[in-house]
Amino acid sequence: MKLEGLSIIGQSRARPAGKPKPAVNPATGTTLEPGYFWATSADVERAVQLAAEAFVEFRRWPGGRRANLLRRIAELIEGHAALIQQRANQETALPPGRLQGETARTCGQLRLFASLIEEGWWCDARIDHADPNRKPLPKPDVRSMRMPLGPVAVFSSSNFPLAFSVAGGDTASALAAGCPVIVKPHQGHLGTSELVGLAAQQAAQNCEAPEGTFSLLFGPGRDVGLALVKHPLIKAVGFTGSRSGGRALMDAAAARSEPIPVYAEMGSVNPVFLLGGALEQNAETIAAGLHASVTQGVGQFCTNPGLVFVEYSAAAQIFLQKLEGAMAATPPGTMLTAGLCAAYRSGVEKFSRTAGVRRAANVPVEAVQDGAQAGAALFVTDVATFLDNPALMDEVFGPATLVVKCGAREHLLAAARQLEGQLTATIHGIPEDFSANQELIAILETKAGRLVCNGFPTGVEVCHAMTHGGPYPATADGRSTSVGTRAIERFVRTACYQNFSEAALPDALKESNPLHLWRLVDGNWKRP
Amino acid sequence: MKLEGLSIIGQSRARPAGKPKPAVNPATGTTLEPGYFWATSADVERAVQLAAEAFVEFRRWPGGRRANLLRRIAELIEGHAALIQQRANQETALPPGRLQGETARTCGQLRLFASLIEEGWWCDARIDHADPNRKPLPKPDVRSMRMPLGPVAVFSSSNFPLAFSVAGGDTASALAAGCPVIVKPHQGHLGTSELVGLAAQQAAQNCEAPEGTFSLLFGPGRDVGLALVKHPLIKAVGFTGSRSGGRALMDAAAARSEPIPVYAEMGSVNPVFLLGGALEQNAETIAAGLHASVTQGVGQFCTNPGLVFVEYSAAAQIFLQKLEGAMAATPPGTMLTAGLCAAYRSGVEKFSRTAGVRRAANVPVEAVQDGAQAGAALFVTDVATFLDNPALMDEVFGPATLVVKCGAREHLLAAARQLEGQLTATIHGIPEDFSANQELIAILETKAGRLVCNGFPTGVEVCHAMTHGGPYPATADGRSTSVGTRAIERFVRTACYQNFSEAALPDALKESNPLHLWRLVDGNWKRP
Repeated sequence: MKLEGLSIIGQSRARPAGKPKPAVNPATGTTLEPGYFWATSADVERAVQLAAEAFVEFRRWPGGRRANLLRRIAELIEGHAALIQQRANQETALPPGRLQGETARTCGQLRLFASLIEEGWWCDARIDHADPNRKPLPKPDVRSMRMPLGPVAVFSSSNFPLAFSVAGGDTASALAAGCPVIVKPHQGHLGTSELVGLAAQQAAQNCEAPEGTFSLLFGPGRDVGLALVKHPLIKAVGFTGSRSGGRALMDAAAARSEPIPVYAEMGSVNPVFLLGGALEQNAETIAAGLHASVTQGVGQFCTNPGLVFVEYSAAAQIFLQKLEGAMAATPPGTMLTAGLCAAYRSGVEKFSRTAGVRRAANVPVEAVQDGAQAGAALFVTDVATFLDNPALMDEVFGPATLVVKCGAREHLLAAARQLEGQLTATIHGIPEDFSANQELIAILETKAGRLVCNGFPTGVEVCHAMTHGGPYPATADGRSTSVGTRAIERFVRTACYQNFSEAALPDALKESNPLHLWRLVDGNWKRP
Repeated sequence: MKLEGLSIIGQSRARPAGKPKPAVNPATGTTLEPGYFWATSADVERAVQLAAEAFVEFRRWPGGRRANLLRRIAELIEGHAALIQQRANQETALPPGRLQGETARTCGQLRLFASLIEEGWWCDARIDHADPNRKPLPKPDVRSMRMPLGPVAVFSSSNFPLAFSVAGGDTASALAAGCPVIVKPHQGHLGTSELVGLAAQQAAQNCEAPEGTFSLLFGPGRDVGLALVKHPLIKAVGFTGSRSGGRALMDAAAARSEPIPVYAEMGSVNPVFLLGGALEQNAETIAAGLHASVTQGVGQFCTNPGLVFVEYSAAAQIFLQKLEGAMAATPPGTMLTAGLCAAYRSGVEKFSRTAGVRRAANVPVEAVQDGAQAGAALFVTDVATFLDNPALMDEVFGPATLVVKCGAREHLLAAARQLEGQLTATIHGIPEDFSANQELIAILETKAGRLVCNGFPTGVEVCHAMTHGGPYPATADGRSTSVGTRAIERFVRTACYQNFSEAALPDALKESNPLHLWRLVDGNWKRP
């Protein structure tokens, strides 16, 4: 696999056009070879037309055949893992161990979706049999199942160069559903994206997928990206990034003559509630765990806990003392890009300037002014200041968190009610805390996609039950998840067949059940 | 139950404000008592605040308790059926038999959703157990299930004064999900809406539902309706009506600071494809069936077949002759409102004026100029004219249809490709026709929510497998259905719990499975 700096359009490469843009090593600020050529509007058109043509065949592939494609992508990523991880390390400053873990996660996701579509139950096949003798009217035979929507545009993330990027969760779930994918990679890891894109291209060729099943177009989001979202043949969008970027895509999609769904994961401050009993018993352990969750990966997780509400007490003071010490002792780390680091510093400064917010002592943020390096930041305030300053709910992407001291249960409730939609909300409590705070938990259930008990929100398990999504503005569509097998449901609609003959029905709906699916038959779930 | 012409806000009535508007009998053009007072902006605010407060409790009701509420609404509608049907007949000119059937359908829908939430499997409960020994990181316990979104605004239809109105499918599915409902009734049947609203209000009281679980606000869509859609505490919208009305709500919802889902069913021309073999064998039967489907209920169904593509042959000539005779012999009927009738006449006129479109002989549309009466209209054209005139795909709501003669298979394919999104597409064919037209069927699968084989699209069965929805512009969200049990999925999101104790988990996710649900446990569906 050789880097050429050119977009991938089906089984070919785009031609160079314009001036190439360099990839950058954020740790050194130096540029990396090769330069990258942005896709032209003709490239966009070609990739979309190919995707629409591919859809005609690809949507009808049996699940097992699509599963082979997903597994082949995983194999090829693993086959080139050293090369991919080396480049990713140069482009993102993420350490080798993390990139190895992310490679495993990416391939695990591809294989999870492969198993899902091989098993087939995800398509929610339903059969209601006819009753010609029903009065006053005969009952028809009605059958339905999930079907893919069409070509999907995927905008990859900055912070997961593999797991939420070119062959990440959005691509895996869209391909699994039967939708061709066009990826607009993040500019923070152009070479990594090209390498993974080449793996996907080769896998498509190996599996004889119709050309256009996968393409990858380099370019800016507001240019190449918006052109994709506005194209009439694109039928859905997956995105991981900033709120402003996600909202721009949502607005563009809603303004189309045919509006389409946008699944944008736009970040979250992931509030943590530390209740009295838990602090009484585990103040130091909680402080250590929270510190690790805030600072790991230089705080660059969408599930990073950026707000901590503490039921204040003597135990809480111990917690805070311990947390302050750990944050102060945190060595600075290199962020993914100089741009993210500048945004982090400006967020830290905004919090520092807010009256009533104390910048906890000895945290060496200002000491670090070189390149893309960021130091940890801890802020402490009281609930009145928090409630008066909605800007304190803004995400500061990086290793920062704000502790809000709450003197009474009403403060916790008021703070919870004020929260915007979140990916996660975390509660530390002993059983008595949970019994005494049922109202708090009920509020958080309506605010967050995932509630975490006595743990930390970072680390999103890839499994059937996971929800990585939450009410707006955490995601564009709070009904959806971008992690776990339910992610496939974002790229489907339900197709229904009335009075079709056995021969004319899709296999999943044939009376003989050749795919051995669980199905809802006349209102009862039937084992194959 | 006494008509007062006042909105219903929880357990109280709105106060009269402004000048009352009369309900109208479309058959006579005369007004009906009482006059109706439009809701004020204060009424909207009060109803929404009450709904948001009600949600706190209502969302936590066990399925069985919500089922009782739905069943009680059905009982009260049945208890006052004679009164409701009499008023509905006066307001809509729909005949008593149809209104009896619609009452049965409405109550059947309420009871179907009651059974669904009693059974409970709809909530899609999933459990992935912890593995503390997994390397490199321990695996958490993750569980998730569907949860209601929040207060829902329902805009009721003109053409189903009961089944898609105040206590119709949208209301039934939203209440079943656990969402309080505020209905904006259609102005075509104000008294019917008030009567059914009173039944829902009384049921809510009988079942001790929190006040605000149900409200009904009279007023214009662009005033009361838009105020509801823009209110920050409304979390989803259900709508049945025109494309312009639905799109206005979609645009308003997308422009909110927190966009919300809109499920608008905006009509369809429901193309019918008559293939050669079927015409050869059944030309006359098909003509009779199509005539009945086009003209029943004065053509006022969203599944009315407005476009018929005919594989032209000698048999097709017999079909067309028979259809012309039947259409010409159709007596005129009274439409739901004078406004709909005027729109119908103008649609008929537009088609009549289109060059290349023949107005089939002896159809007495112009003979009928009184009140809201409409005569059947049949148009015939060739595929070239159809392909050149996209306006011929416009819905003419009423007893009209356009037959398009197609000389070759390529014509059928070209016509199918040109179609917009549809609620339904129908194919008449013998097995040989289906084998020979697989490409046509594949195209139609991507164009319509429901494919009908050798039948007619009118008559939408209420069952688990039904899809009444389709790609835009048939509906705002082609992923959804407004009929059948999947309709409940429109008003939910997925809530996820990580490492929660048995006591703190919702019943549906407890290890002990006290609700005896089907659940996906560690990737396997487990019988209770």
